[in-house]
Amino acid sequence: MAFPELKNDLLLKALKGEPVDRPPVWMMRQAGRYLPEYMELRKKYTFFERVETPELACEITMQPIRRFAPDAAIIFSDILVVLQALGIEVTLNPGEGPRLPNPVNTPEAALALTVPDVKDRLHYVIEALTLTRKELNGQATLIGFAGAPWTLFCYLIEGRGSKDFARAKAFYWQHPEAARHALKVISDTTILYLKAQIKAGAQVVQVFDSWSGLLSPEDFNEIAYPWLKQISDAIEEVPVILFAKGSWYALEGLTQRTNASALGVDWCVTPEYARQATMNKITLQGNFDPSKLLHHPDEITRLVHRMIDRFGAQRYIANLGHGILPYIPVENAGAFFDAVKSWGK
Amino acid sequence: MAFPELKNDLLLKALKGEPVDRPPVWMMRQAGRYLPEYMELRKKYTFFERVETPELACEITMQPIRRFAPDAAIIFSDILVVLQALGIEVTLNPGEGPRLPNPVNTPEAALALTVPDVKDRLHYVIEALTLTRKELNGQATLIGFAGAPWTLFCYLIEGRGSKDFARAKAFYWQHPEAARHALKVISDTTILYLKAQIKAGAQVVQVFDSWSGLLSPEDFNEIAYPWLKQISDAIEEVPVILFAKGSWYALEGLTQRTNASALGVDWCVTPEYARQATMNKITLQGNFDPSKLLHHPDEITRLVHRMIDRFGAQRYIANLGHGILPYIPVENAGAFFDAVKSWGK
Repeated sequence: MAFPELKNDLLLKALKGEPVDRPPVWMMRQAGRYLPEYMELRKKYTFFERVETPELACEITMQPIRRFAPDAAIIFSDILVVLQALGIEVTLNPGEGPRLPNPVNTPEAALALTVPDVKDRLHYVIEALTLTRKELNGQATLIGFAGAPWTLFCYLIEGRGSKDFARAKAFYWQHPEAARHALKVISDTTILYLKAQIKAGAQVVQVFDSWSGLLSPEDFNEIAYPWLKQISDAIEEVPVILFAKGSWYALEGLTQRTNASALGVDWCVTPEYARQATMNKITLQGNFDPSKLLHHPDEITRLVHRMIDRFGAQRYIANLGHGILPYIPVENAGAFFDAVKSWGK
Repeated sequence: MAFPELKNDLLLKALKGEPVDRPPVWMMRQAGRYLPEYMELRKKYTFFERVETPELACEITMQPIRRFAPDAAIIFSDILVVLQALGIEVTLNPGEGPRLPNPVNTPEAALALTVPDVKDRLHYVIEALTLTRKELNGQATLIGFAGAPWTLFCYLIEGRGSKDFARAKAFYWQHPEAARHALKVISDTTILYLKAQIKAGAQVVQVFDSWSGLLSPEDFNEIAYPWLKQISDAIEEVPVILFAKGSWYALEGLTQRTNASALGVDWCVTPEYARQATMNKITLQGNFDPSKLLHHPDEITRLVHRMIDRFGAQRYIANLGHGILPYIPVENAGAFFDAVKSWGK
């Protein structure tokens, strides 16, 4: 497919380890609930209407681009669409988190899962990416994404959010074969899905393992890591960013044993620890505590500059350590983007 | 006060670093909802009736002792009683977490907090401890406890649980003087409260910083650490266990710069990391993933033995890495206690 020329290649440079004048910047969940123009669309359309209508998903992805001109746009979507593609119903009622009315809770149900025709089932994400890539007109790099298999497995088994996902862990321990089958189906589906996203216009992909930090280091190695490796090794077309939230202990292994171009880091590791654990060998992304966007904008500027000084401007992508909170003032989010752009000036 | 002679001093030995044949064992939240005899009492009495009636709190504390004969009994109570002692209303309706109908949300309200007459306000905990110490008859060591100032501050400001306690952090940043005043009042109150608990019969005290892991290493050092140090330095009468959940990065500093006798560790650090970070200088407590109690009892035995092998039997207290989950089968909890007692045999 022919797309407009990329005029801002800062993110790709940082991912390839090429020299930059300042780090690229984007924000996890940057098209989120803190933006008034997004809240307007939220009044008119349900969550699934927004996700499943390519024009709406494109518009929402573009909103923060118009306002803040970050270096990357992350497609507006949801990690749970992959479970929907597997034939699992997902509901989202206002005021509660996602719910799966029929979670997988027997080994038989897990073993019955098969890899679907992703391009058919998730055609709306594919279309949204192509539309957005054109709309971006090369001003920012387009990021596609997916949830990691362990994180999706958590929802698949428990059917809703949890503080500990103890039942998902127990399912893995009690039915290891069925659990590994489910994880493999999710992983294989995710690879096809990410490849379809790339073909449709995604220039970078990020894999979110939001619940990896609930696993002990050994359980991470057994349950979460193999699929992060499988996915990152399978995607050769574009750079892959792996974000295993909370898994500070995994930074070294993910650097040494996967083909990821970058690792996300949350704010519970210092930049110095993250650089040391990754032996200065990989691009790092993060790690501003989203709560810190409640500081005064001047203080945000100071803290962001300090964060860049500590990570270093090379092989670094300025970002939050987790998604932006819904009640952050827009000017504070703006201060974050501006601070990265003014660094070193 | 004259109490029955302590016939089981395994916990005190481990805390003092004296040689033991096997590690002592107890379980965080061991008098919790997984016990059918506790669920019976839960039907008859509200949570606050259970906490505020010394005979009930004693009975609930004794239930797991009779069933499992662990080496320690932790008094049945709640960390939020200290906020109640400060004059803050706390409610607990079935099916939801604790709520503070009038949280502290202005600097004026925070600055107005003063240290109360703890022995008067929390007389029921004091009485429950004395009653339980007698009832235990020296068969197990009695542990008193309190929430850490940062964790209590989170509830004080936000009025309920939160995934990130971002508003509590923001309050600290926006009103540092008022926030520090509130933290100091909580800390001073906690010291008086723990000293009263000790006088009433507590032979060890544990301080729970349940939300310290939400803080970056630097914020931990500024916001949470000073009070953990103040409290552990002030308690000279009995050994102090500090449990800063999620703050793997703090193990070294808490070992070197406080007078704690032991540190709690969750399951997201390996025993080897924990020993290395604490330079083999302090007793460690933990760190069995509570989800692992959903394994088959035989596998629980194997995993517990392996955990002890890795920590080593000396200067170690076998425990979970967090409170027991309500839906754990009683026989699985029993397997945990039995496994520690059968280690090395």
